[in-house]
Amino acid sequence: MDVLPFSTWYYIMGIIGIAVFSITGVLAGAKRGMDLFGIVIIGVITALGGGTLRDLILDVPVFWINNNLYIAIALSAAIVAFFLAKPLWCSYRALLILDGLGVALFNVQAIDKTLAYGFSPVVAVIMGIITGITGGIIRDLLAGNPNLILKQELYATPILIGGVFYIIWLTYLPDVPFGSLLAILIVFLIRFAAIKWDLRYPHWLLFPGKDDS
Amino acid sequence: MDVLPFSTWYYIMGIIGIAVFSITGVLAGAKRGMDLFGIVIIGVITALGGGTLRDLILDVPVFWINNNLYIAIALSAAIVAFFLAKPLWCSYRALLILDGLGVALFNVQAIDKTLAYGFSPVVAVIMGIITGITGGIIRDLLAGNPNLILKQELYATPILIGGVFYIIWLTYLPDVPFGSLLAILIVFLIRFAAIKWDLRYPHWLLFPGKDDS
Amino acid sequence: MDVLPFSTWYYIMGIIGIAVFSITGVLAGAKRGMDLFGIVIIGVITALGGGTLRDLILDVPVFWINNNLYIAIALSAAIVAFFLAKPLWCSYRALLILDGLGVALFNVQAIDKTLAYGFSPVVAVIMGIITGITGGIIRDLLAGNPNLILKQELYATPILIGGVFYIIWLTYLPDVPFGSLLAILIVFLIRFAAIKWDLRYPHWLLFPGKDDS
Repeated sequence: MDVLPFSTWYYIMGIIGIAVFSITGVLAGAKRGMDLFGIVIIGVITALGGGTLRDLILDVPVFWINNNLYIAIALSAAIVAFFLAKPLWCSYRALLILDGLGVALFNVQAIDKTLAYGFSPVVAVIMGIITGITGGIIRDLLAGNPNLILKQELYATPILIGGVFYIIWLTYLPDVPFGSLLAILIVFLIRFAAIKWDLRYPHWLLFPGKDDS
Repeated sequence: MDVLPFSTWYYIMGIIGIAVFSITGVLAGAKRGMDLFGIVIIGVITALGGGTLRDLILDVPVFWINNNLYIAIALSAAIVAFFLAKPLWCSYRALLILDGLGVALFNVQAIDKTLAYGFSPVVAVIMGIITGITGGIIRDLLAGNPNLILKQELYATPILIGGVFYIIWLTYLPDVPFGSLLAILIVFLIRFAAIKWDLRYPHWLLFPGKDDS
Repeated sequence: MDVLPFSTWYYIMGIIGIAVFSITGVLAGAKRGMDLFGIVIIGVITALGGGTLRDLILDVPVFWINNNLYIAIALSAAIVAFFLAKPLWCSYRALLILDGLGVALFNVQAIDKTLAYGFSPVVAVIMGIITGITGGIIRDLLAGNPNLILKQELYATPILIGGVFYIIWLTYLPDVPFGSLLAILIVFLIRFAAIKWDLRYPHWLLFPGKDDS
């Protein structure tokens, strides 16, 4: 049996990740009464926003600009999410977990891309985080929802941990394979645990606030 | 009688579009008590924000960076809007219609520019939309107003329809002139009709919302 | 006694400015209950956001992408601000004044950089403003706070005045030294006065608002 090469799986999973980001973006961001076009904008920005900011900062061609497939997928997924919002909403938890897989994958892809262009590991870890969270943050700003920085849900932290793990692996075990798969697994599992058991930072790592406000 | 060449009209109309965007931006976004400088920022961002994001994504020089006229016009128009807010407010409807003309023009300019740099028609249509709506969206975020994605007013949809029309024209009738003028007219007329009759998407194309929120 | 060269002072002060921006960013933007990672994101965006947008628009390498020190300083300062929020909050006024020094310095650095890349003085003044205010504006958007465009506090205006002064100096007194120091002093003193005496625009330069809303 022929098996697809790893890079192809990588690409296919990236496409699936875009679709899932777009769908969860619509489910999380859409408000009653938004029209179809607004929904599509919400979905597409959630799906493509993070990678776009990453590529702008790295000053490399924006990933979707020479491959219409990304736009087509993000757009179609948003339309599907619009019409199937009710059944999809029932499986929102399952979608969140798929979303965690997408985030995990995009993180590794962003780190690989950043390092391939010769930037430092620190920048690579930051690009993983930017790729994972920017789309959702812009979506929440546009939709008038509180964004993940204001919430205690663990979303960005798994990306950070996985990114640091991956960089350490690449530094000390450059010839040992499966580092990227492990990094994906780590982000996904922490995110999965965070969803499953509603993990948060311990109390002493939450901002105490000011007395007067 | 000498007639100005088309490219000159194009340029002049672009300048007028910038001025109108800045004025309508101030009228739509300004809040009681904002100072003059805040108003100018609101106007300039509304007028130049969309084209700026377009050029950043296309990775071409930002259109106002080598021609101070754009900044000068956006800035002056915002100052005018500040001091003449009351009379201008009385003609807000007329200004909205001019704004529709600006959006229609910027759409065709963005598509032409994107195609001239060798990007795909899909990217070109998206750049037309980004150019038309980004400035107003940033303005609404800064001013704390609900943005057009949250509202049912038809603003982005006419741009999409005109953009698709224009791409089809360029593909199938590449040698037939007036395609750009027709595309401008289509966007303008749909936008005009949307303002005049308060057109919205039909009910089944509005997001139903979730049961629990 | 050996004295460090001016460019070294410039660099050191820039680093201090980044740290102060990150700390004041956390104190101004953080809300009760945000987790440590959210706080770090708030601090880093406040400190690095303005220069990032400036460099994206100028299409030059983003200043922190080839020098990890900026990220390290912004990150560390945000962590310090998280754990020492209470004592730092007591000296918030002193920090605001340091922040004014940072803004003053970044303004001159942005103008120098923009002119060095061959852009016009008008663009240079705008880049000084963008560098000074963008980080704080994004922070306020993310934190759900009213941003400086909505407030009457003088923050952007001192930058504008100092920038115009600096450009005039460079144009008419190109060989006379200390223009940059004077420009820094001007921005700092106006900002200091604005904080000390709560300076605002006169009434006739505040937007009157619309009658019907």
